[in-house]
Amino acid sequence: MQKIQKMSARTRTVAGMTAGLALVGGVVGVSAAQAAPAAPAAGKAASAVRQVTVLRTDAAMRIADAVQKEAAKQNQRVAVAIVDRSGDLRLVVKGDGAGPQTVESARRKAFTAVAFGQPTSRLAGNATGNGPTVKDIPGTLFLAGGVPVASGGAPIAGVGVGGAPSGAIDEAIAQAGLKAVQGQLG
Amino acid sequence: MQKIQKMSARTRTVAGMTAGLALVGGVVGVSAAQAAPAAPAAGKAASAVRQVTVLRTDAAMRIADAVQKEAAKQNQRVAVAIVDRSGDLRLVVKGDGAGPQTVESARRKAFTAVAFGQPTSRLAGNATGNGPTVKDIPGTLFLAGGVPVASGGAPIAGVGVGGAPSGAIDEAIAQAGLKAVQGQLG
Amino acid sequence: MQKIQKMSARTRTVAGMTAGLALVGGVVGVSAAQAAPAAPAAGKAASAVRQVTVLRTDAAMRIADAVQKEAAKQNQRVAVAIVDRSGDLRLVVKGDGAGPQTVESARRKAFTAVAFGQPTSRLAGNATGNGPTVKDIPGTLFLAGGVPVASGGAPIAGVGVGGAPSGAIDEAIAQAGLKAVQGQLG
Amino acid sequence: MQKIQKMSARTRTVAGMTAGLALVGGVVGVSAAQAAPAAPAAGKAASAVRQVTVLRTDAAMRIADAVQKEAAKQNQRVAVAIVDRSGDLRLVVKGDGAGPQTVESARRKAFTAVAFGQPTSRLAGNATGNGPTVKDIPGTLFLAGGVPVASGGAPIAGVGVGGAPSGAIDEAIAQAGLKAVQGQLG
Amino acid sequence: MQKIQKMSARTRTVAGMTAGLALVGGVVGVSAAQAAPAAPAAGKAASAVRQVTVLRTDAAMRIADAVQKEAAKQNQRVAVAIVDRSGDLRLVVKGDGAGPQTVESARRKAFTAVAFGQPTSRLAGNATGNGPTVKDIPGTLFLAGGVPVASGGAPIAGVGVGGAPSGAIDEAIAQAGLKAVQGQLG
Amino acid sequence: MQKIQKMSARTRTVAGMTAGLALVGGVVGVSAAQAAPAAPAAGKAASAVRQVTVLRTDAAMRIADAVQKEAAKQNQRVAVAIVDRSGDLRLVVKGDGAGPQTVESARRKAFTAVAFGQPTSRLAGNATGNGPTVKDIPGTLFLAGGVPVASGGAPIAGVGVGGAPSGAIDEAIAQAGLKAVQGQLG
Amino acid sequence: MQKIQKMSARTRTVAGMTAGLALVGGVVGVSAAQAAPAAPAAGKAASAVRQVTVLRTDAAMRIADAVQKEAAKQNQRVAVAIVDRSGDLRLVVKGDGAGPQTVESARRKAFTAVAFGQPTSRLAGNATGNGPTVKDIPGTLFLAGGVPVASGGAPIAGVGVGGAPSGAIDEAIAQAGLKAVQGQLG
Amino acid sequence: MQKIQKMSARTRTVAGMTAGLALVGGVVGVSAAQAAPAAPAAGKAASAVRQVTVLRTDAAMRIADAVQKEAAKQNQRVAVAIVDRSGDLRLVVKGDGAGPQTVESARRKAFTAVAFGQPTSRLAGNATGNGPTVKDIPGTLFLAGGVPVASGGAPIAGVGVGGAPSGAIDEAIAQAGLKAVQGQLG
Repeated sequence: MQKIQKMSARTRTVAGMTAGLALVGGVVGVSAAQAAPAAPAAGKAASAVRQVTVLRTDAAMRIADAVQKEAAKQNQRVAVAIVDRSGDLRLVVKGDGAGPQTVESARRKAFTAVAFGQPTSRLAGNATGNGPTVKDIPGTLFLAGGVPVASGGAPIAGVGVGGAPSGAIDEAIAQAGLKAVQGQLG
Repeated sequence: MQKIQKMSARTRTVAGMTAGLALVGGVVGVSAAQAAPAAPAAGKAASAVRQVTVLRTDAAMRIADAVQKEAAKQNQRVAVAIVDRSGDLRLVVKGDGAGPQTVESARRKAFTAVAFGQPTSRLAGNATGNGPTVKDIPGTLFLAGGVPVASGGAPIAGVGVGGAPSGAIDEAIAQAGLKAVQGQLG
Repeated sequence: MQKIQKMSARTRTVAGMTAGLALVGGVVGVSAAQAAPAAPAAGKAASAVRQVTVLRTDAAMRIADAVQKEAAKQNQRVAVAIVDRSGDLRLVVKGDGAGPQTVESARRKAFTAVAFGQPTSRLAGNATGNGPTVKDIPGTLFLAGGVPVASGGAPIAGVGVGGAPSGAIDEAIAQAGLKAVQGQLG
Repeated sequence: MQKIQKMSARTRTVAGMTAGLALVGGVVGVSAAQAAPAAPAAGKAASAVRQVTVLRTDAAMRIADAVQKEAAKQNQRVAVAIVDRSGDLRLVVKGDGAGPQTVESARRKAFTAVAFGQPTSRLAGNATGNGPTVKDIPGTLFLAGGVPVASGGAPIAGVGVGGAPSGAIDEAIAQAGLKAVQGQLG
Repeated sequence: MQKIQKMSARTRTVAGMTAGLALVGGVVGVSAAQAAPAAPAAGKAASAVRQVTVLRTDAAMRIADAVQKEAAKQNQRVAVAIVDRSGDLRLVVKGDGAGPQTVESARRKAFTAVAFGQPTSRLAGNATGNGPTVKDIPGTLFLAGGVPVASGGAPIAGVGVGGAPSGAIDEAIAQAGLKAVQGQLG
Repeated sequence: MQKIQKMSARTRTVAGMTAGLALVGGVVGVSAAQAAPAAPAAGKAASAVRQVTVLRTDAAMRIADAVQKEAAKQNQRVAVAIVDRSGDLRLVVKGDGAGPQTVESARRKAFTAVAFGQPTSRLAGNATGNGPTVKDIPGTLFLAGGVPVASGGAPIAGVGVGGAPSGAIDEAIAQAGLKAVQGQLG
Repeated sequence: MQKIQKMSARTRTVAGMTAGLALVGGVVGVSAAQAAPAAPAAGKAASAVRQVTVLRTDAAMRIADAVQKEAAKQNQRVAVAIVDRSGDLRLVVKGDGAGPQTVESARRKAFTAVAFGQPTSRLAGNATGNGPTVKDIPGTLFLAGGVPVASGGAPIAGVGVGGAPSGAIDEAIAQAGLKAVQGQLG
Repeated sequence: MQKIQKMSARTRTVAGMTAGLALVGGVVGVSAAQAAPAAPAAGKAASAVRQVTVLRTDAAMRIADAVQKEAAKQNQRVAVAIVDRSGDLRLVVKGDGAGPQTVESARRKAFTAVAFGQPTSRLAGNATGNGPTVKDIPGTLFLAGGVPVASGGAPIAGVGVGGAPSGAIDEAIAQAGLKAVQGQLG
């Protein structure tokens, strides 16, 4: 997760220069795999396609397994959801005893994290105020508990966790899930 | 309702230690019937199933009947809804003359109460602020009038009432409904 | 509209005694036609039915016609919607050049006015604050421009207008619509 | 229920004269309470309102209670729903062990029965064919188990039951529910 | 309505030459106002805009009024809906006593008529079969009762009527509505 | 899966006696855990609650893992979904390369299997005909690939698989998933 | 875009005189093409139709092309959407690497800009406060990045851009899109 | 398009061996880029990610441009939509004068083509019958006019066209769109 923290440092600078409604998506700008998509590599002139890095299903299941194990260790009942950069739902696992709101909550946190390339806890500031904010964008949820999965400096998926009594616990459990694929995202 | 009040005392302590977005779900932690679902009882190794306590339909109808009678006594026109811990809608009764918004209002209050294991009136604090709050979670409504049904220390259902001129009246009517099953939830 | 103003005076007193989340539905309490539905009139013991007053279709059309004429006089492009106390949509007329948001806006104002028995402009106070408010109830819209149609002291329909540059103008146009059925609601 | 059977006899004649897509709504034509709404009674000239007969909430609850008791007697697990002629949802009770599809199934059968003024079992013929049929109308379901509640010769509500292994059983249970208000619909 | 009948004659020929799934939209090909939109008239080179003929709101209200009057004359309870060629909902009027399914039914018939430029009764053949047909397109309804409003040979709006015991009656009532704007569509 | 086959034998007999629209839910009738919910066991008089058997989350994950492994072995790209008897979504895993329709397809097959207590392949007969069938019930899908999870003779969950070139393969893969919890459902 | 700026100057004055909930739609009042629709031009008495100016498809594509080129120049990944004054969706182009939230975000900004006839950045003030505001109208989004397309002084379409790290950048890119049709909107 | 025809030949054989409900997705089995995703290439052990080929935005726009030009040449008014293999909507362009149903129609054809890896015209057989078929899967539409975009033998996107008087014309126009990226999909 070191890469993401470096990215977010840069991002906050960018966000600091913009208005209160700024979308913190600048992290995508430094990505390798998905950067500069408008300029095809030389020697592949006029190609109609490009390559996109996506999370493998078995990796998604390892994340979900790690999430549920960490939740059990912390005696929490949570749901976990994983969403692709395309917005595609890849995985949902609702833990025993998790509340009826947890699946949708987890799904939206995952969506928000991959959409803006930041943990939802860091995005909350941009979603604060009594005028228009990013909170108004359909499908988002800016409560803590959503974390992006990054590859080559760009967000490729989001992991969302919901159900613990605080968003901080949800996020810690989500981060434990990310550890299950650490070093395998290169 | 004594059990719930004891739980909520503990919960508020927990919530007090967490950030403003904290989900007040800690009550589940002390539950007997649904606690520690990740650790199957010894002697039942590797069981793929567990037992969950749910409200009986006739009990739900007794609650609804008590709600409508209390509403009539108070000269109010309300709808009542009952939702399971799974989120499943178990009952809706819309009283004579109740407004067009009351069914959905009651349903969401019931959903919120069973999701967070607290009367919605006590959850309102967590749903206040001009940044992200639990109010942003789809399906919830944090107006007073939703109360959880607890069994073994865990929320198993929510009862929601909508239509009175104040949430406090809605909640009093919902509590009158809960009395109809008092002592039968053990 | 005199009756409604008297009702709302009483209502505001009631609301003043309740918390910030109070639903201003007290007006229904004084209704004749729909009052005390839980107690069937003597001599009709155990009847399974009751009578409800609803707006006639030709009256709805006269309201819509008056709304569009007043809008033309004021050089405004508006939509008008009429909703029953049951929530049933009875009429929509979108004026020439009215914006794409006006139909849904008008429909929700009408819904809100008949749900709470008050012009939406008077309900705005109850929908203000950064905690839970009636604004969170699905289907509502608390912008000015929605007015209830009352019969026998109870709201039987709502008229909503949307599209003018201010809610005050929308409301004035809606009131002009109500005049078309003045004295015919007894 | 005698009245409805007489109505349906007449209706089938009417339907027989129309094309395969005919909506069997002719029963409404003979209604007293709601008939000829476009022609206000003399002496009440230019009234903007009319009276509509609706099912009382306590009657709806008696129907639901009778439905669940009959279902228990027949060892069936069903949901029951009641819908007004306006389409307004008045009641839902999901029985213990009823399947996840039963609430929506019951609701749509109730909707269909009150919409067309006939038991859904008798409407099935109009919903048959491989071209357009009434089955294509949103919100309807033409499986047996929906029955209209009639007052003054017109449908004022629909009762729908879902969950038994055959629609015929669902309908028998729904009819048992109707008996609970027999003689009280005049 | 003569023009439309001529159009449909030509259309049926076209349809006869195509497969069973053929969309009968050929009528649009002969339109003046909206024909050949890809080729801007000389002397207006590179214009970014074009003119579209739409139904006026007062005309829509005259149609609705004529529909409800004809329905009253025939002792039918119907809803009428009018939809623009853009799909925009322009008008809904639900008649006294019309069933809960009639508004959506009328809306979809109107949508279908303006989408395919034919009365829905004539389109039913294209919506018949046990494989894919135009019936599968969301928002459509191929029951009789929807008629297009044509101007300059092209459909500019659709009028849909629902609620009579047969689609043929619905269509006759819709045609009576169209007469209210006869000779004013040039 | 032996128990289910015995159940279905009995069920087909029941279904054979009913009309073409018969819902094959009779299997529930022989259940132990959820049977006869309307009659509380003696000595627990007037209890407001009952116990329901649900699938544990770790069991759901073992099923999903087995499904994806079997799919890989057969070189298929599928999604798997698991739904509770309450209709609650418990798990979704979309395999690498699975099509965009597979998640919803799997979810509906799972819903249908647990709703009717039979593999969807056996229910297809009840969903056949050009009149109303169970296919018309919202949320269902009667393509092969959905199988119920039974405990104590009653369906407690459904497993749905979508994405293989035939429903028969989807079902075989789903059955492989069920094997992962064989002998643990008692 | 000069015309729009002049309009908005006038509009802000109007808005300044109204309450906080004022809809800034006054600009429409000065339009030529769509003004005063209620008064048909003399000599065309009782016409049932009127002419509306709409954006041509090729112009929409030129706008989208210019948007994506400007985004590439600024190294941003955005979606662009174009919506008619009728609310009709005319175009969506999602750029390579744009986030999953961008299409809906762009669509709503476009909707909002054409609905209120102003860039969304200028409307934000009207959408600020902790009571009811225009933000509550369904389908709207008041983040910067939506700009109206005006013809004859009236908004005929909206262009929305979403995906850049700040709304200001989104708006600049949208304005670059508008330049592609400059001088062709007369 | 040669590759796709070879694929479909193989597919039809596969489909021929399966039941009537068979999903024709076998084409994916021969893909290079997305084949055998469950088995990571040696030397990249335990990687959590994989590469997916997606259509570039500029290619999508070239397809849309070619579609609209071909439609103009054939004097047709159509909408075109492009959907990724993930189900992500990439592009919508609604042509001048295209009907209100064309955007959703085009979107669903595109979705269906990329989901099953075949032109929708070839899939129609699998969607025929009066029992359950693939037609019942949400989001699909099996009318002709949807064609897959293939790269490396696997479907990576779908192009859908709607609005012509027959599906055959829609498909021919969609194929003309595909030609715009011919030889650039390697």
